[in-house]
Amino acid sequence: MPLPRATLARSLARPHSTPSFFTPSRNLAAKRTLFSRAQKPPGWQPFYRRHPRVFAVLAAPFVVGGSLGVALLGLWAYDASTYHHPHAGRVPVDPVALKPERGGKKNLKVAAALIDDLDERVVNARDKKRLVIVGGGWGSVGILQHLDPGAWHVTVVSPDNYFLFHPLLPSATVGTVEVRSLVEPLRKIIARVSGHFLYGRAVDVDFSERLLEVACPGDEENFYLPYDKLVIACGSVNSTHGVPGLENCFQLKTVQDAQAIRRRVMDNLEKAALPSTEEDERRKLLSFVICGGGPTGVEFASELWEMVNEDVISYMPGLLRDEIKVHLIQSRDHILNTYAEKISEYAEERFRRHEIDMILNARVKEVTPQKVVYTIKDPKTGKTTEHEVDSGFTLWSTGIAMNPFTQRVAALLPNQYHKHALEVDSHLRVIGAPLGTVYALGDCATIETRLVDHLLEFVTRCDENKDGKIDEREFKKMMGFIKRRFPASEKHFGKIEDIFKQYADGKGALGLNELADLFINVSRKITAFPATAQVAEQEGIYLAKKLNVLAKQHDAHVAIDNGVYDDPDDMLYEPFNYKHMGSLAYIGNSAVFDFPGFSFAGGLAAMYLWRSVYLSTSVTIRQRCLLMADWVKRSLFGRDLSKF
Amino acid sequence: MPLPRATLARSLARPHSTPSFFTPSRNLAAKRTLFSRAQKPPGWQPFYRRHPRVFAVLAAPFVVGGSLGVALLGLWAYDASTYHHPHAGRVPVDPVALKPERGGKKNLKVAAALIDDLDERVVNARDKKRLVIVGGGWGSVGILQHLDPGAWHVTVVSPDNYFLFHPLLPSATVGTVEVRSLVEPLRKIIARVSGHFLYGRAVDVDFSERLLEVACPGDEENFYLPYDKLVIACGSVNSTHGVPGLENCFQLKTVQDAQAIRRRVMDNLEKAALPSTEEDERRKLLSFVICGGGPTGVEFASELWEMVNEDVISYMPGLLRDEIKVHLIQSRDHILNTYAEKISEYAEERFRRHEIDMILNARVKEVTPQKVVYTIKDPKTGKTTEHEVDSGFTLWSTGIAMNPFTQRVAALLPNQYHKHALEVDSHLRVIGAPLGTVYALGDCATIETRLVDHLLEFVTRCDENKDGKIDEREFKKMMGFIKRRFPASEKHFGKIEDIFKQYADGKGALGLNELADLFINVSRKITAFPATAQVAEQEGIYLAKKLNVLAKQHDAHVAIDNGVYDDPDDMLYEPFNYKHMGSLAYIGNSAVFDFPGFSFAGGLAAMYLWRSVYLSTSVTIRQRCLLMADWVKRSLFGRDLSKF
Repeated sequence: MPLPRATLARSLARPHSTPSFFTPSRNLAAKRTLFSRAQKPPGWQPFYRRHPRVFAVLAAPFVVGGSLGVALLGLWAYDASTYHHPHAGRVPVDPVALKPERGGKKNLKVAAALIDDLDERVVNARDKKRLVIVGGGWGSVGILQHLDPGAWHVTVVSPDNYFLFHPLLPSATVGTVEVRSLVEPLRKIIARVSGHFLYGRAVDVDFSERLLEVACPGDEENFYLPYDKLVIACGSVNSTHGVPGLENCFQLKTVQDAQAIRRRVMDNLEKAALPSTEEDERRKLLSFVICGGGPTGVEFASELWEMVNEDVISYMPGLLRDEIKVHLIQSRDHILNTYAEKISEYAEERFRRHEIDMILNARVKEVTPQKVVYTIKDPKTGKTTEHEVDSGFTLWSTGIAMNPFTQRVAALLPNQYHKHALEVDSHLRVIGAPLGTVYALGDCATIETRLVDHLLEFVTRCDENKDGKIDEREFKKMMGFIKRRFPASEKHFGKIEDIFKQYADGKGALGLNELADLFINVSRKITAFPATAQVAEQEGIYLAKKLNVLAKQHDAHVAIDNGVYDDPDDMLYEPFNYKHMGSLAYIGNSAVFDFPGFSFAGGLAAMYLWRSVYLSTSVTIRQRCLLMADWVKRSLFGRDLSKF
Repeated sequence: MPLPRATLARSLARPHSTPSFFTPSRNLAAKRTLFSRAQKPPGWQPFYRRHPRVFAVLAAPFVVGGSLGVALLGLWAYDASTYHHPHAGRVPVDPVALKPERGGKKNLKVAAALIDDLDERVVNARDKKRLVIVGGGWGSVGILQHLDPGAWHVTVVSPDNYFLFHPLLPSATVGTVEVRSLVEPLRKIIARVSGHFLYGRAVDVDFSERLLEVACPGDEENFYLPYDKLVIACGSVNSTHGVPGLENCFQLKTVQDAQAIRRRVMDNLEKAALPSTEEDERRKLLSFVICGGGPTGVEFASELWEMVNEDVISYMPGLLRDEIKVHLIQSRDHILNTYAEKISEYAEERFRRHEIDMILNARVKEVTPQKVVYTIKDPKTGKTTEHEVDSGFTLWSTGIAMNPFTQRVAALLPNQYHKHALEVDSHLRVIGAPLGTVYALGDCATIETRLVDHLLEFVTRCDENKDGKIDEREFKKMMGFIKRRFPASEKHFGKIEDIFKQYADGKGALGLNELADLFINVSRKITAFPATAQVAEQEGIYLAKKLNVLAKQHDAHVAIDNGVYDDPDDMLYEPFNYKHMGSLAYIGNSAVFDFPGFSFAGGLAAMYLWRSVYLSTSVTIRQRCLLMADWVKRSLFGRDLSKF
């Protein structure tokens, strides 16, 4: 709104009152008046007083633009400040780190000191006890983010120098997000506890000398890394279920897997668009088969379907969209069978609408480069029939198995019976290993719950009158012990009086046989914790807190270093118990949530909620920013169809 | 600023005048008064009138926050709208495209129709003449962005389905930017002209039948693609200069190269940090050797140096920073020798300060996995000495050579003498190929400037009195012809009268010998256009404009289809001339600019200018946004040190 003419004329006519160093021309004088403190006529008010509402409306864009400008300038100034390079003089290095001595059973170099032990940034933890963590996944990061800085001399050993936020890996296979947004360099996470990272693969352990054998990528000779506490958190590999031809499948566990899938999907689409491709070949190239109806399989199927419908359709020949088929082979009678029934049904309904072919109650028999052979068992007749489906791309995402290192550890130890993971007690100590020195967590560990193995121990502890029987008072004490030792069993025992009555059968006391029956029945009901990020992270946090307590203990009683180093961690800290926070999955522009006692499925709104949950569970601010940027990028520019 | 107590007390005491549906409690009534239209006491003014300045200050954050919120909500709403999938019914497909007939010399399938010819989005260009472009680089994109939509039936053939913004590739090798930000799917660029993309590698041409032979990745059988105009724009490969052991080098031409370098650099750093690595081995791993002191080599050296000083130093052992060495081997006596002298000196001074080892006047003799052997010629004595430098990473970035397809094309044609590229005339027509059907541009083409080859033609045209000599009037006419035909020669002829006088030597006319002398002298002075993005893009734009004119010509005279299809493009359109816009390079947090007649080098400010130039020359908005996001990301979170 311009100044009213009358006011303007008046102000132009008014002589200016500021002293000047030269005699201004008439025009200049007039102009200066507008900006100088002129005498105001009586009753004159500035514009913003006379028309505050108009002023506010006019000023708003300037305020907004100005603030944005200031923010940008600030960012720019900050950016400019990041190119400063302090030239650090030569750093001191421990001579032992440069020329390590040899030792151990295999006479390898023993890394008694590391080349960055004397660096300024690790000075805190230099003389502490050595905590060695094998692996850099959820469990490992759970520990690193909750360990007291300086409490331990921490070293992480992993063949990958990054943490991978794998729940979003299916999104990375088609470019909804980028893999770079899902990784975080482990060194940055380790920096919090002034720890060390070693780029290598753990291959063997010498439990008696407390040496971990590490193989370096491409290097001839392995070396030994000494530890006081060893944490095995190196995850799992995919289970083969003994199916032949799995070398023709893709998997979805690593960054490389996601990249390979993305390349292959685009490769198939591009090949299908070539004029020389025969019709049969095109149909094969466009047939995507997913073996496994768990969250990974379902989310990959959804992401693939979305890419086809949101991006491929706009830029590639229409024929491709018509001929693409996605098949999902599931061994149970529902997909997402570990979720609530309502959730599975929603997912199946959604998939039916999207024309994703669900093959239920089917077991894969063989995978070849051209097709997948499977058998279906009719749930009514029990008869098994064999079928096959052409496949230009097969994804294998079923179950977990031990990787070579955990296999080796299990082979070294007595009492390791589990097929798919290392057995640990409820304090996460690996069973059979020297007590208090080796822990395992995450996908590579499973908490042992065979109560009956501990029967005699419990009876000895609780049979106070030594009559070989357990009366009701002793039974209550025993229950206390059991719950402490096997927290997961608690909800399966029910009311103590009721069980006692049921098993005592009117005799007033329980003998060994009755107790064995009870323990076996309860053990059967306890299910292992699922192999999820959530469990691994909670186990990591649990272990970090325990290690913090142990570190304080060390500082109190300085040296208990008698070779068999036994921390009384079952006295100092309670056993691990898992608190399930719920599961969620993404299904073709909608999402499902299965929280304890509450399940929920829905469209776009649920999808945004799903995204927020993942944003909030991301490990770092950087990951959050990059994920958000990726989602905005998809929204504005679509997925990148470039294949490399 | 809270309301003054007196005012508040007054407003609480005042009875409210709005009708109410229930009798409110005293407190409620008081509260409602604050929000309802109460009777105002005389002279009462709202807060924003009484204290407009305070109000403005208080309101500003809300205005800013609100605007941002509205913008975010808008983005969100837009995002939600992008998940809509129109279900297109089955698309029509030309039966010829599904069952192509065989033909040509090799009896391959002939792609006379493509499966997306009948798609809605290509309907414009369906019946037009066929323009086939081999390659998807700067030249190709230059054409695609300036061709009239619908003027031609365009097909791009390339083994990569993306355009790569390669000037920033050195930044992608250490994670300053991501390779995803440098690529743009070709299909999106092609969509502008309703064109087609075929994922394949051109391997051969049948000029007489106008068929391009294409090999599909992984497919057994090649196919023929018919064309009316063929544009060869498939770039070059690195020149080996006959040096043995180049398989031990990295190159920097493709996305895969940049990814491989990034992996290797991180791999070397991680290995050097292992306790088992011997001191000699560590020094070798941390020795980076760059062969070639042109812009690519210099920029890579700078980026590497920055990553080490900005990121490695914060998270990796300090010893690494101390031991890293970067060596740059250059065959001339200055780095960046094609730039102005001032620029080279600035770059060298900068490198000296950064302790980057420049080895000048040196020729690489051999590269082994462990070291680089080179010879240095003393510029004074002329004596050659042999040296070697340990290398854990060797980059080869010197010169260009023909790729297999351009080699094949050159072998098929007469009059192709050039070693490194296809010779074209100044209309970009490949010399020796049927006139008006085959063009070449970018790195794979060089414009022929041997004036003397055309001597007789010029004389025949201009010797009007047929006396076998050229007098001054005829010479002026000839100069006109020459300048039209060889625009690059113009600046080397100088003033016509002067040359005539100089060569005619007082005889008043030029014979064939004098003319030949003149032509040879001028040809020597003409340098080939450099193999840069700038030249390729200008050639692409030039060709697009010419093709637009030719398309209009076709539409006028409908059918000239007599097998030997000759567009009179030298009559319809002028020859290509290159306009140099300047060169720039990035040198360790500073940048240098070499514009025609003006060169400039400087620190951070120049670096930001360098970034703006690249932002402005990016091909799409998407690339610009992603590049900016990458730079902000580096600023806030540093480079990603994850290795995968």
